Amino acid sequence: MTEFNVSAHLQEVLASFSLCNDARFKAIMSAVVRHLHACITEVKLRPDEWKDAIEFLTETGHACTEKRQEFILLSDLLGLSTLTIGINQQRGDDCLEETVEGPYYWEGAAELPSGADISEGVKGFKTYYYGRVIDGSGAPIANALLDVWSGDGEGNYDMQLPGQQEMMARGKFRTNTLGEYGFWSIKPSYYPIPSDGPAGHMQRKLGRHPNRPGHIHFKLSADGYVPVNTQLFIANGPYLESDCVFGVKPGLIVDYVEHPAGVAPDGREMSKPFSSVPFDFRLTAIQHSNARTSYEDR
Amino acid sequence: MTEFNVSAHLQEVLASFSLCNDARFKAIMSAVVRHLHACITEVKLRPDEWKDAIEFLTETGHACTEKRQEFILLSDLLGLSTLTIGINQQRGDDCLEETVEGPYYWEGAAELPSGADISEGVKGFKTYYYGRVIDGSGAPIANALLDVWSGDGEGNYDMQLPGQQEMMARGKFRTNTLGEYGFWSIKPSYYPIPSDGPAGHMQRKLGRHPNRPGHIHFKLSADGYVPVNTQLFIANGPYLESDCVFGVKPGLIVDYVEHPAGVAPDGREMSKPFSSVPFDFRLTAIQHSNARTSYEDR
Repeated sequence: MTEFNVSAHLQEVLASFSLCNDARFKAIMSAVVRHLHACITEVKLRPDEWKDAIEFLTETGHACTEKRQEFILLSDLLGLSTLTIGINQQRGDDCLEETVEGPYYWEGAAELPSGADISEGVKGFKTYYYGRVIDGSGAPIANALLDVWSGDGEGNYDMQLPGQQEMMARGKFRTNTLGEYGFWSIKPSYYPIPSDGPAGHMQRKLGRHPNRPGHIHFKLSADGYVPVNTQLFIANGPYLESDCVFGVKPGLIVDYVEHPAGVAPDGREMSKPFSSVPFDFRLTAIQHSNARTSYEDR
Repeated sequence: MTEFNVSAHLQEVLASFSLCNDARFKAIMSAVVRHLHACITEVKLRPDEWKDAIEFLTETGHACTEKRQEFILLSDLLGLSTLTIGINQQRGDDCLEETVEGPYYWEGAAELPSGADISEGVKGFKTYYYGRVIDGSGAPIANALLDVWSGDGEGNYDMQLPGQQEMMARGKFRTNTLGEYGFWSIKPSYYPIPSDGPAGHMQRKLGRHPNRPGHIHFKLSADGYVPVNTQLFIANGPYLESDCVFGVKPGLIVDYVEHPAGVAPDGREMSKPFSSVPFDFRLTAIQHSNARTSYEDR
């Protein structure tokens, strides 16, 4: 039998990029081609499996709408999102870890006064989040911005609720001169990612569950510090050990301290039981002239 | 700086497939994950580049319609289609080489008598294709099926012509007891792949041209022989050395012999000049019980 020359074929494809004048794009596409060729050769992909792959990618594209990003879901489920974030982290030791943004960020939440309650109309156990934003030495960072969002106590984000047009459980807060922040929201539940599309089909076929542990999202930024996109996870909650998008980091797991009715840490009189989450966010000072200063730069 | 543990992360993703009970799917997805993680790590993909990739895949999906398959185009342009075909070839030495099917196959062409002309209404230089279908030892294969299609002499397939509802330059032919076939069509031109979508955008950004050399497609099948999906390419034509989908094989390049008006090889009286293409298709006998016997099996 005549053997197909895998290596000569790869060289021919790579050589076709010789006139590319975007060095970075050429390097990325060359790596993509090398690794995809190696993958196909390694598993000896059959033509019917190649067709299945084409169909899967097509369906994934067709599942993407203004409200749904199936390729991000796919990237999350295969650990590609967490990997990309991990290899780009610019943080000092013990500083806040980044994790995936996920598909539920909604630009333009209102900036609210410290102590505001963003849980109006949101199902779930009332919770007070408070603490400080500090630098690597523990010194407070004033005027840091916390952009906060979460799903509710039943596992749904506002944009997933039928007919819900307004933002819920979202808000922006700034630290005071002592670096302090504080706001009221709810204790978010674990939830399944949308698994009625191609990514969900793949997840089931891989024998995996579709769940994420309960968490609340924060985008943190402050002049002179590396911005961080992160989440706080509820200690002892389900799926903490098997987050389907691999987003959990040990330093991001927090206790939800339960309290009976009475006076809250901010002095508010609570007629029902509530929980509180004290957490200090430690940011890394920007060292390099070319470092990111806002999310828009990324 | 704390380092993200690339290797531990990869192991975590692979471990999440542990309950998958489809061994082949698990092997493929594990390879996909390993190679994609290696690729992202190697190029140190930035978050903005990851976003570009998500957007590119989304647009590629949205460009796929009933009449257009942008992911196949992408696969072709990166040499993945040719690679998949190459590593699955089951042919004896000197037997017919396979190449890409491309996106223009149209199921259900009519089976026509030997010598029929499928060039009615098709722009291009009239050409007679003839020869034999033979086995590895040169013995004729009777009743072999040739499923033929091509674009026209200006580079357009029937399905690309505005308002064209009927098939043109397509037909099925069978060999006689001597293994002979013969039919009339045209000499196909080189042409550009559709480059107004995301795949074309990528091709331009890579500094590549979008052209395929002139060729005519054949699907060959016969009882007891490995079916072959292939193309014949016009010798000395443009883009033979740089087919944008890497489909050219030396054994598939054929001379278009030019003739003045007069008697054609099949005895037909031609009032204008024409060309002829003599070519023998050499098929490989099926050796294994699990070999493919038709395209539907693949």
